[in-house]
Amino acid sequence: MEGFPPSLERVIDAFSRFPGIGKKTAHRLGLHVLKSDLISISEFANALIEVKEKITFCIECNNFAESEKCEICINPKRDRQVICVVEECSDIFLFENTGFRGMYQVLGGVLSPLDGIGPDELNLKSLLGRLNNVNEIIVATNTSVEGDATALYLAKLIQPFDIKVTRLARGIPVGGNLEYVDEATLSKSLNERVVIA
Amino acid sequence: MEGFPPSLERVIDAFSRFPGIGKKTAHRLGLHVLKSDLISISEFANALIEVKEKITFCIECNNFAESEKCEICINPKRDRQVICVVEECSDIFLFENTGFRGMYQVLGGVLSPLDGIGPDELNLKSLLGRLNNVNEIIVATNTSVEGDATALYLAKLIQPFDIKVTRLARGIPVGGNLEYVDEATLSKSLNERVVIA
Repeated sequence: MEGFPPSLERVIDAFSRFPGIGKKTAHRLGLHVLKSDLISISEFANALIEVKEKITFCIECNNFAESEKCEICINPKRDRQVICVVEECSDIFLFENTGFRGMYQVLGGVLSPLDGIGPDELNLKSLLGRLNNVNEIIVATNTSVEGDATALYLAKLIQPFDIKVTRLARGIPVGGNLEYVDEATLSKSLNERVVIA
Repeated sequence: MEGFPPSLERVIDAFSRFPGIGKKTAHRLGLHVLKSDLISISEFANALIEVKEKITFCIECNNFAESEKCEICINPKRDRQVICVVEECSDIFLFENTGFRGMYQVLGGVLSPLDGIGPDELNLKSLLGRLNNVNEIIVATNTSVEGDATALYLAKLIQPFDIKVTRLARGIPVGGNLEYVDEATLSKSLNERVVIA
């Protein structure tokens, strides 16, 4: 197939290797690169290299970091009494958007014996080393079978330390219409109903 | 908002400036950069810079090119008797996929008096300079009012040269269900029906 010069083909090809970017979108993005000015594309290219060179993992919570500890762990204003345990670094962003100002612990996955992921594959050691002066562990794994199993495992693991372990509430989404809620969620929201008066 | 280190924020921000890339997709792409190996990201960054530095426009047909003329114009195997006139360089790719092996002319737009685009703003001069030994001009502008007006203008412009000017057939899409075809298209496909026996 002719039509596009090799250098453009290479850019389109690189874009199409990103997740969720199909052939047509990759074309659109490649053509956008040609339309953009050289300065903004250079900045983009430099940012790509820089992020690969700079980002490591926080030795405390395992979040993305540019130095030994991440920005959340070095922030003295954060509430060190609460640790929110998440599966992936990207989950932290979601909680930051809610206004949560406690600490985090990134597990790097969930228990999944079928995939060969046991307790040793998760970042549990550094969590156990951080339990001094903590009074609540919020387990924020996904509501999958593996997420639930991991939550139970963590609850048992932390029990000897006399620290409260909580799990995110499950129920009807805010703004959700009952008609579109699945049975399992509706049943959960009924069983865990909250007294309001 | 905390959570992501500055270098990652910069990459996400750069991705979100591409057309059709929202905040969530930009996040996903940014995190994918972190997961990818440094070599493939370096290659991507270099490809971005390279395409900006290398790509110019073909002096003959105005397609993207890496040298004076594009790969299609320098290819001796292409049929120089047919020129397909398209609005944008990206349209060439679509025709290449159909197996068309004639030449192209990129107009760089369509006539649109309201937007201040008249004949002088389109690449018509180089088209008129290429009409020797050409026996057909296929006008492949979009089927918009402006595309139609441009096709008519071209037909008039080329009339003195005694060259056949054609326009893409309009009708029901291949594999299309009559139920979902709009009235204007159905009416066109009825008026321009083709004898089959």
